[in-house]
Amino acid sequence: MSIQGKPVSASFVESSELVQPGDVNVYGSVFGGHLMSLVDKAAGICAYRHSEMNVVTISVDQLIFKSAAPAATILSIRASVNRVFNTSMEIGVRVTGWRPGSKKETLICPAYLTFVALGPDGEPAPIIPVIPDTPDQIRRFEQAGLRREARLALAQKMRVGNP
Amino acid sequence: MSIQGKPVSASFVESSELVQPGDVNVYGSVFGGHLMSLVDKAAGICAYRHSEMNVVTISVDQLIFKSAAPAATILSIRASVNRVFNTSMEIGVRVTGWRPGSKKETLICPAYLTFVALGPDGEPAPIIPVIPDTPDQIRRFEQAGLRREARLALAQKMRVGNP
Amino acid sequence: MSIQGKPVSASFVESSELVQPGDVNVYGSVFGGHLMSLVDKAAGICAYRHSEMNVVTISVDQLIFKSAAPAATILSIRASVNRVFNTSMEIGVRVTGWRPGSKKETLICPAYLTFVALGPDGEPAPIIPVIPDTPDQIRRFEQAGLRREARLALAQKMRVGNP
Amino acid sequence: MSIQGKPVSASFVESSELVQPGDVNVYGSVFGGHLMSLVDKAAGICAYRHSEMNVVTISVDQLIFKSAAPAATILSIRASVNRVFNTSMEIGVRVTGWRPGSKKETLICPAYLTFVALGPDGEPAPIIPVIPDTPDQIRRFEQAGLRREARLALAQKMRVGNP
Amino acid sequence: MSIQGKPVSASFVESSELVQPGDVNVYGSVFGGHLMSLVDKAAGICAYRHSEMNVVTISVDQLIFKSAAPAATILSIRASVNRVFNTSMEIGVRVTGWRPGSKKETLICPAYLTFVALGPDGEPAPIIPVIPDTPDQIRRFEQAGLRREARLALAQKMRVGNP
Amino acid sequence: MSIQGKPVSASFVESSELVQPGDVNVYGSVFGGHLMSLVDKAAGICAYRHSEMNVVTISVDQLIFKSAAPAATILSIRASVNRVFNTSMEIGVRVTGWRPGSKKETLICPAYLTFVALGPDGEPAPIIPVIPDTPDQIRRFEQAGLRREARLALAQKMRVGNP
Repeated sequence: MSIQGKPVSASFVESSELVQPGDVNVYGSVFGGHLMSLVDKAAGICAYRHSEMNVVTISVDQLIFKSAAPAATILSIRASVNRVFNTSMEIGVRVTGWRPGSKKETLICPAYLTFVALGPDGEPAPIIPVIPDTPDQIRRFEQAGLRREARLALAQKMRVGNP
Repeated sequence: MSIQGKPVSASFVESSELVQPGDVNVYGSVFGGHLMSLVDKAAGICAYRHSEMNVVTISVDQLIFKSAAPAATILSIRASVNRVFNTSMEIGVRVTGWRPGSKKETLICPAYLTFVALGPDGEPAPIIPVIPDTPDQIRRFEQAGLRREARLALAQKMRVGNP
Repeated sequence: MSIQGKPVSASFVESSELVQPGDVNVYGSVFGGHLMSLVDKAAGICAYRHSEMNVVTISVDQLIFKSAAPAATILSIRASVNRVFNTSMEIGVRVTGWRPGSKKETLICPAYLTFVALGPDGEPAPIIPVIPDTPDQIRRFEQAGLRREARLALAQKMRVGNP
Repeated sequence: MSIQGKPVSASFVESSELVQPGDVNVYGSVFGGHLMSLVDKAAGICAYRHSEMNVVTISVDQLIFKSAAPAATILSIRASVNRVFNTSMEIGVRVTGWRPGSKKETLICPAYLTFVALGPDGEPAPIIPVIPDTPDQIRRFEQAGLRREARLALAQKMRVGNP
Repeated sequence: MSIQGKPVSASFVESSELVQPGDVNVYGSVFGGHLMSLVDKAAGICAYRHSEMNVVTISVDQLIFKSAAPAATILSIRASVNRVFNTSMEIGVRVTGWRPGSKKETLICPAYLTFVALGPDGEPAPIIPVIPDTPDQIRRFEQAGLRREARLALAQKMRVGNP
Repeated sequence: MSIQGKPVSASFVESSELVQPGDVNVYGSVFGGHLMSLVDKAAGICAYRHSEMNVVTISVDQLIFKSAAPAATILSIRASVNRVFNTSMEIGVRVTGWRPGSKKETLICPAYLTFVALGPDGEPAPIIPVIPDTPDQIRRFEQAGLRREARLALAQKMRVGNP
């Protein structure tokens, strides 16, 4: 029996950026909006690589700013496909920061985004499944399901409370 | 009895933008990352006006791309404080689009973000409450509470399933 | 008898911007060129909304920098149609600034620009008149006429003195 | 007798720019706001060179868009000091466009801006006069006076009509 | 005996970028200047990681545009330290492009840049050597020496022929 | 006998830029990548003017950062055709900096780039020769030949040592 799908590693994206003085807000840390653009870009490249189709961002499901990133921080933006749901897929992104002399990277921003892939007619098209291999990939696969259930339950509650 | 607080209307932000050819992605619609920057900027101005303190984005809790916005669309970005939770506040943003000849605006992107306000010591400081007045403001106030509960419940579930 | 036209309020544009560190010049205030771009954008959106046709900037008739706007200033850019002259229209723009703790907004920059609307053939086309309602709108309507006369008189004088 | 001053040529600025696809608006021509930024930048460099002091734009007195400039146009932006009025100076700017195969440059945009120079205390400081030499420089010197008179007369009329 | 140094892999940088419509020139391919900025940024991050000191670009020794990269190309920018020469180091950068459906990446741009590291006094400071391990790393180490010799020989020839 | 060609002066490009706070890196000097973009833009305009054909950058053969350029420096970017080699041409660029009170300009960055011109079929096409007139132009013409020979010799050596 063969499971049709591509491994997570096949579309993994890593990007490095240096926070420049023009990228920081009035508090001396990288702009929220600039960081969001980097996250969306890396996630989009990952979704594009996995599906080999045109992709569009459907939602940012969660994006948390854990730590500030002052000028001269090196940002590493890593994106991978967590799970495919027929015509949509959750992409997980982790942004970490490093400065010379630091022993390790600081977590700046974890984020989860949903993309759809578009067929030649511009309509959402089925996406090849992703096959999680490592324990971390399996955990992310399962948590992507929990997040989706929580979103659907919340949307249901909003509708009920809003007749 | 007096309820100490400021009305939602006191910090309401409206901004207009024209989608320019340099703002669109390879599918001819405004970049996700560009739209996120506009949303974050309007939300930040709203949080700054309400709290009259320095503010930072803590999280994007949900941001949905409902419709595409091709070049020449006029975007209206409207932001208001939905609810204050002691040192944090939820800002709701609605981006709509209009093109000449359209009878009405199209919903492009609803979004919910959380900001904290920083005191003179750079630490999170209490924020003056917001007083919802209209039925819509009261609904958003309540839904902000539901969204927060759902986030906490999901975070709890993730921890349990991830020992 | 009915005057065919649209009220000023129908195309009124308000936009909010935060002056970021990357927007300021070597003296710590927002760039002239950046402010001009914001003014032109708001005026263009206003002209586009009023005429419901493609519009192009024909001239900046006057734009005055009254006060500096340092980083962290919230700019409000307000644009309205002052008067329609057949195929052209004067748009008035006022940029004000506010900072936390300020009791009121500071006038940063008043400006007057002229736009034409383009028909489907790309040639200037008649624009629906604007109907001023409030005393301020009526004053601006009249002053738009004075500015136009002064421009024509000056152009005439330049030609005479430059045979 | 010696006239203390600097010749126009000592601070003349010429700049070349290529209109790139990302610089054009929805009608395929360079953005008004982008062109204004180029004009302000060249005028500011000219004022800075002439005065050898910090300078700030005080007003755009007139800026006319004569012709469109599509992508691939080479823009030449030329700025010179037209006249010094004690602590302020008028800078004239001409933007022309050229495309391969064209016999001559097209006038895209003439503009007149006023700058002040700031002394070490940040207050407006006297500027060394400019000495016009050529017939064109003398004509521009005189027209700068006419423009200034017309501005003052118009401002007076506005005040009278607006008690 | 131990060779003091860091392996090439410790400072290897990989970055992914999507060519967006606003990044392409009038011929539909990514701007030379945009690509150079990406190359310089990745090389600078690599030099910063290796030396753990502030670094500045001293020269671009060679940068070749091998193929065009139209909008929607995913660029991979890979940078590594080729060789350290006391206070300077050669960084090699390879930019490749990939588009959905392609079997392999296309070479867009190989480049070689020299950086110096600055000590706390802002003066060039000795850099920890790099230890090449793989045959490719050893070849690049040796070629960095040949390039440096050729540059010195050419500079000598220019001086002789230019007395 | 007539030599078919255009003089160097016919395509000479001069551009002025002011280094703004948003253009400087974490060490307070203009970004390498920003300077490279300015160099590439000026060189491209020069190549376009000389050939009157579409041109693309083929290589940066050498670009040296001689001095830092802090915010408020006025940059002068001067580009000229050094030599034409059938379908390619070497463009030389000199970037200098000036600050008020300086007696003379500082050399910031000399650079040499190679461009090809593209015919209507998008293939490299013969370029009209350039005629050097002044001693400086003749020296640059000859040095362009030496640089080309050195590049070819180095490429040959690389191939031999890399079987």
